[in-house]
Amino acid sequence: MPRYTAPTKDTQYILHDVLNITEAGIPGYDELEAEFTGAVLEEAGKISSDVLAPLNAVGDRQGCVLENGVVRTPDGFRDAFEQVKSGGWTGLDMPEEYGGQYMPYVLGTAVGEMFSGANQAFTMYQGLTHGAASAILAHGSDEQKDTYLPRMVSCEWTGTMNLTEPHCGTDLGLMRTKAEPQDDGSYRISGQKIFISAGEHDMAGNIIHLVLAKIAGGPEGIKGVSLFIVPKFLVNGDGSLGARNGVACGNLEEKMGIHGNSTCVMNYDGAVGYLLGEEHKGMRAMFTMMNEARLGVGMQGLALAEAAYQNALDYARERLQGRDVTGAKNPDGPADPLIVHPDIRRSLMDQKSFAEAGRAFILWGATLIDRAHRAGDKDADGLISLLTPVIKGFLTDQGYDMTVQAQQIYGGHGYIEESGMSQFTRDARIAMIYEGANGVQALDLVGRKLAQDGGKHVMAFFDLVKSFIKDNAGQDDAFDRDFLDPLKAASKDLQAAGMYFMQQGMKNPHNALAGSTDFLHLFGHVCLGLMWARMAKASGDALANGTSDAAFHETKLATGRYYMARQLPATALHLARIQTGADTVMALDAENF
Amino acid sequence: MPRYTAPTKDTQYILHDVLNITEAGIPGYDELEAEFTGAVLEEAGKISSDVLAPLNAVGDRQGCVLENGVVRTPDGFRDAFEQVKSGGWTGLDMPEEYGGQYMPYVLGTAVGEMFSGANQAFTMYQGLTHGAASAILAHGSDEQKDTYLPRMVSCEWTGTMNLTEPHCGTDLGLMRTKAEPQDDGSYRISGQKIFISAGEHDMAGNIIHLVLAKIAGGPEGIKGVSLFIVPKFLVNGDGSLGARNGVACGNLEEKMGIHGNSTCVMNYDGAVGYLLGEEHKGMRAMFTMMNEARLGVGMQGLALAEAAYQNALDYARERLQGRDVTGAKNPDGPADPLIVHPDIRRSLMDQKSFAEAGRAFILWGATLIDRAHRAGDKDADGLISLLTPVIKGFLTDQGYDMTVQAQQIYGGHGYIEESGMSQFTRDARIAMIYEGANGVQALDLVGRKLAQDGGKHVMAFFDLVKSFIKDNAGQDDAFDRDFLDPLKAASKDLQAAGMYFMQQGMKNPHNALAGSTDFLHLFGHVCLGLMWARMAKASGDALANGTSDAAFHETKLATGRYYMARQLPATALHLARIQTGADTVMALDAENF
Repeated sequence: MPRYTAPTKDTQYILHDVLNITEAGIPGYDELEAEFTGAVLEEAGKISSDVLAPLNAVGDRQGCVLENGVVRTPDGFRDAFEQVKSGGWTGLDMPEEYGGQYMPYVLGTAVGEMFSGANQAFTMYQGLTHGAASAILAHGSDEQKDTYLPRMVSCEWTGTMNLTEPHCGTDLGLMRTKAEPQDDGSYRISGQKIFISAGEHDMAGNIIHLVLAKIAGGPEGIKGVSLFIVPKFLVNGDGSLGARNGVACGNLEEKMGIHGNSTCVMNYDGAVGYLLGEEHKGMRAMFTMMNEARLGVGMQGLALAEAAYQNALDYARERLQGRDVTGAKNPDGPADPLIVHPDIRRSLMDQKSFAEAGRAFILWGATLIDRAHRAGDKDADGLISLLTPVIKGFLTDQGYDMTVQAQQIYGGHGYIEESGMSQFTRDARIAMIYEGANGVQALDLVGRKLAQDGGKHVMAFFDLVKSFIKDNAGQDDAFDRDFLDPLKAASKDLQAAGMYFMQQGMKNPHNALAGSTDFLHLFGHVCLGLMWARMAKASGDALANGTSDAAFHETKLATGRYYMARQLPATALHLARIQTGADTVMALDAENF
Repeated sequence: MPRYTAPTKDTQYILHDVLNITEAGIPGYDELEAEFTGAVLEEAGKISSDVLAPLNAVGDRQGCVLENGVVRTPDGFRDAFEQVKSGGWTGLDMPEEYGGQYMPYVLGTAVGEMFSGANQAFTMYQGLTHGAASAILAHGSDEQKDTYLPRMVSCEWTGTMNLTEPHCGTDLGLMRTKAEPQDDGSYRISGQKIFISAGEHDMAGNIIHLVLAKIAGGPEGIKGVSLFIVPKFLVNGDGSLGARNGVACGNLEEKMGIHGNSTCVMNYDGAVGYLLGEEHKGMRAMFTMMNEARLGVGMQGLALAEAAYQNALDYARERLQGRDVTGAKNPDGPADPLIVHPDIRRSLMDQKSFAEAGRAFILWGATLIDRAHRAGDKDADGLISLLTPVIKGFLTDQGYDMTVQAQQIYGGHGYIEESGMSQFTRDARIAMIYEGANGVQALDLVGRKLAQDGGKHVMAFFDLVKSFIKDNAGQDDAFDRDFLDPLKAASKDLQAAGMYFMQQGMKNPHNALAGSTDFLHLFGHVCLGLMWARMAKASGDALANGTSDAAFHETKLATGRYYMARQLPATALHLARIQTGADTVMALDAENF
C-alpha cells in the first residue's frame, strides 16, 4: 500500500524562507511564525498519514453505494470525518463568528495539499463544503449566514455545487433547471443536475446544495441564471431540522477514479430553494466558489504528483534491477537499485522539480488571495485572477503526467491495482476536467484574463519577473547562468506569445485561441521557473549565511538547476507552435475530419 | 457505447499509394493487389466493428474470474474467438504447412490494428499465441513444430510468454525458476511467473506456455537462461491430450485496464518442459517473440489512439456547447458543436495527425520485416531492429497521450465509465509498460541499437531521409516549405543528438542515457515527419494526376501540414534537453532526493 508523508519541511521552507510570510504585511500573517505554522502542519501531517492515507485504497476499492436513496461511503470514512471535524480542520480559515479559526488562506492551502495528497476523494467532501460556505459568506444575507455557516464551517452539514446538466457543462446558458417564485419569497426548484460531487452521503446531518437555475420569465441564456440554497432537510426557525426537501440522488456515476467520493445525479422536484445573492446574478455568485475551487483543483494536481512521487522514489531505491552502466553501485547485491539508472533519475527529477515548484506556486497564489481579501489589494486580486487558470490548468495537466511517470517507474507492478500507483493516475485524471476543463481554462486565460483591465495584470506579472531578475543579477555568476538567464529567456517567450496574440488575434481571434493551451503551458513554465529562481535565491542566501542544513539547500539548488535546464526550454516549443497561428489548426472543414 | 470503424480506406491508401507494396519486390507482395487487400481489410473491419468492438466494454466491466483453478473469460468472448478462428484470421501470416495462409506480415499488421482497436484485451489471446508460435517456428525441432504449430496457428491451442518473476522483470538474469534435466531429455520446471497474459482461460483446448528458466548447474545470470515449452496438458504421441501438467494459475491480477485479458500468476511445480532451441540460449529464442511483440505493442498504441479519436470526433461534432468566437456556426441551434472551437480542433488534429502517420510508420516497419524475413535482406533487418524500440516506445507514449486527449474532449462525460473513453486510456496505459517498459526501449535504442554494426543502421536511416528530400526537392515550393524543410530541420536535430551521444557518451555513458527518452521521442517525431512527407508526396501526385478523390488527398495534405508545423518542432526541445547531458540529471545523491 502506498505511503504518504506530508511535505512539512518543504512547506515550511516555502512559507518562511521563500515567501517570508511573516514580513509580508498581510493582516493575519504576523501570527504565522515558523513555530506556529510548524505545529499546525505537523498535526495536519499526522492526520494525513495516519488517518486519511490508510483509507485511500479502501475508498478506491469500495467506492460509494446507493441503496434506497441513501449513499453509503466507504468503511472508515465516517470515523475519519469525525476526527477531521473535531480537530477543527474544516474551519481553519473561516471567520471566528461562525466557528472558524480565521487563519490565512495560505495556511488552509498548505493543509489542503496534505489532506488531498493523502486522500483526494475523502477531502473533497470538506472541500466542496468550504466552497459552498464561501459563497454564502460572500453573497448570503445575515439570516442565511447565521442559519447555514456555523454548521457548514464545522462540517456538521456539508455543501455542494450544482452547475452541470446532462446537455450543458461549460455552456451554462443552456441550463434548463427552473426556479418558480413563491409567495413567501422562496422558490421551487425543478430539474436535473449531474456530476454532483458529495451530492448525497452518510457523513453529515444535512447537505446544503447550491444550485444554479433559471427563474421563470427571466432573461434568456446565461443572464437569466440565479443561484439558490437548497437544503436536503429544511431548517426550522430555531435551527432544528424540518421536512425532507424535494431533492434526491437518482444515481451514482461509475467513474475512472475518486471512487470514495459520491458523484451524484441530483433530481430537484419542486424543491424549496432560497435565492443566494441577486436574481439573475447567479454566475457572479457561483464564481466565488469556482475561483476558489479552481485553485483547490490546481492544488490537487500538485498533491497527487507529490504523493505518487514519494512512492516512486521508495520503489526506485528498493527495487533491484540491472547495473549502473558505469559500474555496480550495489556490488554485494544481486543488482543495483533502479535509482542508479539515468532515465529513472530523469523521471524522478521531473517529478521532484515539478512538485516543489508547484507547491511554491500554489502557496504564492494563496498569499495573493490573502492579500486581496484581507488587505483589499486590487492588484493582487487582478494578478491571482490572471494566474487562476494557469494554476488550475498547468498544475493538473503536469500533475497528471507526473503520476503517470511515477506509475511507470513501477513497471508492471504499477499497472496492478495492488501497488496503488494506478489510483494516483486515475484520481489525478479528474482534476484536468472538473471546475472547468483545462481547455476552458486556456480559453479563459487567453480570451479573457490577458486583456482584463487593459492587460494591466499580465504587465504586472512581467514587471514582477523583470524586477526579480534586475534585483538579483550580477551577484553570482552561477546563479545568473543557471537561473536568471533561463528565466529571462522563458519570460521573453511568454511576452512574444502575448505580442503575437495581440497582433494576430486582432485579425482573427482563432489565431490566439489555437494557441491557448500552448500559452497556458508556456505561462505555467515561466511561473515555475520564477518559483525556482526565488527558491534558488533563498537557498543561496541560506548557504551564504552558513545554514546548519546545507544539504537541504544544496538539494534545492540542484533540483532547481534541473528544472531550468530540462523543463523550462519547453517555452520555446510552445511559442513556436503559437506562432503558427490558426492556419493549420482550422484548415479542415468539420466534415473532412 | 463507443463505436469502432476500421480505417480501411486509410490503410489501403498507405499500402498502395504510399508504400506501393505491389511494386516493392518482396516475395509474396505481388499478390497484394488493391482489390485483394481491400477485400481482406473489409472483412477484418466487419468482424472488428460487429463482433469485437461490442465486447470491449463487456470485457472491461466483467473482467476474468478465477474459480477452482479455472479462468472464466467475459460473456461473449468464447463465441467471438470461434468466429475469429473459423474466419482463418489467426493464421493469416503463418506458413501454409501448419494451416496458415502465409500472407505477408504487413497484412497481418493491418488486420491486427483493426482487431486491437476494436478490442485490445480480446485480441491479446490471439497475439500472444502468434508470438509463441513464431518462436517455435524459428527455434523448434521438426517434431515440436508438428506437435504444436497446427493447433496454435488455428488457435485451437493458445500460447503465452513467461518471463517475469516477482523480483525480476527487465533484469532477467535474476531469474529463479529452475529446470531439472530428466533422463528422457525433458526437464522439470519449478518456479513462479507473474503478469502472464492469457496464462489461463476457457477459450482453448490447451495452452502452450513458453517459459524462461535456468537449468540447474548452468552459468550464472542471463547466460544461464533457457526457453522451454510447457503445455498445460501434455500431448501424446498421436497428438491427443494427455495428463494435466504441473502448472496452474495461482491468482488473477486486478489491473488498471485490459480487464478482459487474464493476467495470471503461474505456478510451475515440477511441470514437464521441453527445451526450445539450445541450452542457455533462451534469451535469443525469446527475442524472436519479443521483437514481434514489441511491434505489436506499438501497433496497440496507435490502434487505441485511432479508436479513441473516432469517438472524440463524433462527440465534438454532436455536442453543442458555446459559440464560435468569430460567429455562430449553428445559428438555429442552441449552441455550436464543440468542433468549432480552436482548442478542440487542435486536440483533434493532434490525434488525427498522429494516428495516420503512426499507421504509416507501423506498416512501413512491417514491410521491413517482410523484406528481412522473405527476401533475406540484412539491411532491412538492421533497420527494423533499430526502429523497433522507437515504434514500441514512441507509438505507445504518444498513443496514450492521444487517448487522454480524446477523453478530455468529452469533459466530465469522459471520466464516467459509461462513455467508454476511460477504458481507452486505461487499456492504452499498459502498452507503455509491457514487452519492455518504454524507458527500457530508450535504453535499448541509445545503449545498443545506435551503435549496432558500427552505427550502420542509423546512418542508413539518415541516408533514407536525405535521399527522400533530395529526390523530391525543388519541384513544388509549397511542398518544400511545408514538408521537406521541416523534415530536414528535424533530421538535423536527430543527427546532432546522435553526434552529442558519440562525443559525450564516450566520456561518460550517463551523458547519453540521461537523454535516452528524449532521443526516442526525437527519433519518433522524425519518423512520423518522414511518413507525412511521403504521404504528402503521394497525395500531391494523386492530385496532380487528377484523382477522383481530391477531398481525401487535400485532407491528407492539410493534416500533414499540421503535424509538420505543430508537432515536429518538438525535436528542438528534445535536442536541447539531450545536450544538457547528465549533469543536472545525476546531480543528487540517491539519499538526497
